Amino acid sequence: MVSAGEGRRSVTVLGATGSVGLATVDLLERHSALFEVEAVVAHSDAAGLAAVARRLGARRAVVADATAKPELDAALEGSGVTTAAGLSAVIDAAAIPVDWTMAAISGAVGLTATIAAVRRGGAVALATKECLVCAGAAFMREVGAAGATLLPVDSEHNALLQALGGQSVDAVEAMTLTASGGPFRTWDAARIARARPEDALRHPTWSMGAKITIDSATLMNKGLEVIEAFHLFGVEAARLRVVVHPQSVIHGLVAFRDGAVTAGLASPDMRVPIAHALGHPGRLDTPAARVDLARLGAMTFEEPDLARFPALRLALEALAAGGGAPAVLNAANEIAVAAFLARRIAFGGIADLVEQTLSDAAGRGLTGEPATVDEALALDAEARALATARLPGHALPAH
Amino acid sequence: MVSAGEGRRSVTVLGATGSVGLATVDLLERHSALFEVEAVVAHSDAAGLAAVARRLGARRAVVADATAKPELDAALEGSGVTTAAGLSAVIDAAAIPVDWTMAAISGAVGLTATIAAVRRGGAVALATKECLVCAGAAFMREVGAAGATLLPVDSEHNALLQALGGQSVDAVEAMTLTASGGPFRTWDAARIARARPEDALRHPTWSMGAKITIDSATLMNKGLEVIEAFHLFGVEAARLRVVVHPQSVIHGLVAFRDGAVTAGLASPDMRVPIAHALGHPGRLDTPAARVDLARLGAMTFEEPDLARFPALRLALEALAAGGGAPAVLNAANEIAVAAFLARRIAFGGIADLVEQTLSDAAGRGLTGEPATVDEALALDAEARALATARLPGHALPAH
Repeated sequence: MVSAGEGRRSVTVLGATGSVGLATVDLLERHSALFEVEAVVAHSDAAGLAAVARRLGARRAVVADATAKPELDAALEGSGVTTAAGLSAVIDAAAIPVDWTMAAISGAVGLTATIAAVRRGGAVALATKECLVCAGAAFMREVGAAGATLLPVDSEHNALLQALGGQSVDAVEAMTLTASGGPFRTWDAARIARARPEDALRHPTWSMGAKITIDSATLMNKGLEVIEAFHLFGVEAARLRVVVHPQSVIHGLVAFRDGAVTAGLASPDMRVPIAHALGHPGRLDTPAARVDLARLGAMTFEEPDLARFPALRLALEALAAGGGAPAVLNAANEIAVAAFLARRIAFGGIADLVEQTLSDAAGRGLTGEPATVDEALALDAEARALATARLPGHALPAH
Repeated sequence: MVSAGEGRRSVTVLGATGSVGLATVDLLERHSALFEVEAVVAHSDAAGLAAVARRLGARRAVVADATAKPELDAALEGSGVTTAAGLSAVIDAAAIPVDWTMAAISGAVGLTATIAAVRRGGAVALATKECLVCAGAAFMREVGAAGATLLPVDSEHNALLQALGGQSVDAVEAMTLTASGGPFRTWDAARIARARPEDALRHPTWSMGAKITIDSATLMNKGLEVIEAFHLFGVEAARLRVVVHPQSVIHGLVAFRDGAVTAGLASPDMRVPIAHALGHPGRLDTPAARVDLARLGAMTFEEPDLARFPALRLALEALAAGGGAPAVLNAANEIAVAAFLARRIAFGGIADLVEQTLSDAAGRGLTGEPATVDEALALDAEARALATARLPGHALPAH
């Protein structure tokens, strides 16, 4: 790893204007004596990125969307911050050697940029779901080859990492991810099937984007997280479990062979897992709300209902099937959730569309594990086309 | 550390016939390919010790009570197990170099034998409360000087050790021990004051000895455990907390500076923490019941009520006062609990007697931290005399 001048660690933030990115920026600002910022990168929010670059005194600011470059230049005029735009500029920025990278750009750009960051080694804090869901095996091979340290910042995976405490997965009997259960936890199947977007967007615990909120209403988010955990920790599918825990205070539990269990808890503040990754192997102070069990009073737990929440069943089946199934599941879900939010399909249609797409993909032989990130991106595109073709008013693409 | 032949680790069990000892014996028997047993030691239960020595194929069996030697010899005739008796034989057995020692003899003998085990280095699994409560500073100096690895097997301290996961206490904001709350958790103060031994001996979760059961009804046990945690982990008193958790599934929680919390959970089976200590740094399989959160359904938490449970308040105050106060507290509590079990004082009189004894000890200048284990034992004896003198029908000893 490269050491920054004056003992400060050098960092790059990929996806600096999203919720994870802004939480990271908040921590970097609070601990500015410890870190110096090499690059901040965003999809297209030039104004937001410029503000972040100024707050952190970053060396460079890069937008993926080249049309946002003039606005970025204008906003950073006189700041001394170097600017760049376009996909190759993002990759270049990600590849600059630093001690620590936050990988929080979503989508294909995020996957490509995260691979670039992984390849130069060092610590990579991971918030980009696509890396593990669409290209898990290929991505983890890159991590292994580069000797990079992967630090997940999703609250569930970060809790599992903390609960594992550096112990071997050979000692692990089971890993359990908790799920809030979402807004329809207590609804019956018929009512869930008819749910509207506005019903789902009232999430009980976290304030999140619309896509993630729908995923947490279907429990697909938990299925995707189980798939991520499979790759992150190298624990086989049969040892990965989900328990519904509406208070969302415990985020993950590791059960060991001797019967002991360690659990990771935190208040719903992304700065907690991000601070864990940023301070690793030490700890950084944060102003996040503290867990107060006596004030909480009770934590409750229940088995997830795979009949009422078929998306979770489909995700667990895709993980068990392996190969390309998780990538197809994820792509189909993206299309399905967008269609639900656009009121083109019912809530109950989300899992139906995913299941049909998995079946269509299997029928077309799209079952192999993507061997490279490029293959994963190609499979993602094919699966999206198959799912889109199943939407009302579309014909199946020619075979 | 000394390595056993054929790659097996050598172990000694001090206190092999008590509940912790027998749980250890069970694990050693299940994993006999991994361990060879140097010595098993007990207070006076010759028949029980002989049975254990035969089960484990131990090299030697030692009873502290010399009058039990003939029975031990008779029971082990023809077994090839070497026998010995008396305090110095116990110390000699404890001092034999082994890889791992279970220190589970209570009382003064236990303290002296545990010190002998600590002095020869290696790993010492600690179940002997007196070491830390009566002589914490002196004992921890011995541990440090010998470079011994101390592995607590009390469920609370073991949970804290696992939750800490090898991280520095500098990263710790607070450590919380859970308390079941005991049988009087929901009783009002007047009813608690009048409680009879038979009321207290119905403990909700654990099946334990009478002394420990009364301590868990007064919450003194939790106060003593906080004192132990102070010495074990080197965390100052202000960062040690207690929360009442009637289901006793979470045993301890470590809160870090970033707001993250890790917790240690287990079913109420002593084999879980003992297996952790025995397998350390690996893990050993156990048949202990597994934690099943969905089946449990709910965990509840509440602040301990120091007004209804003054013994916990006294213990926390003794820790804050430091010096000899924790040892005096412990000695007075032993006398008080025995008097309560003998129906000589009321339940409400236990804390009163402890408080009076602490005051009497302070009045006599017994406030200094014992600098050695011998000083700790002397202070213990003095405090017991002071407490006994406060019992009905006794006069205070001459000043």
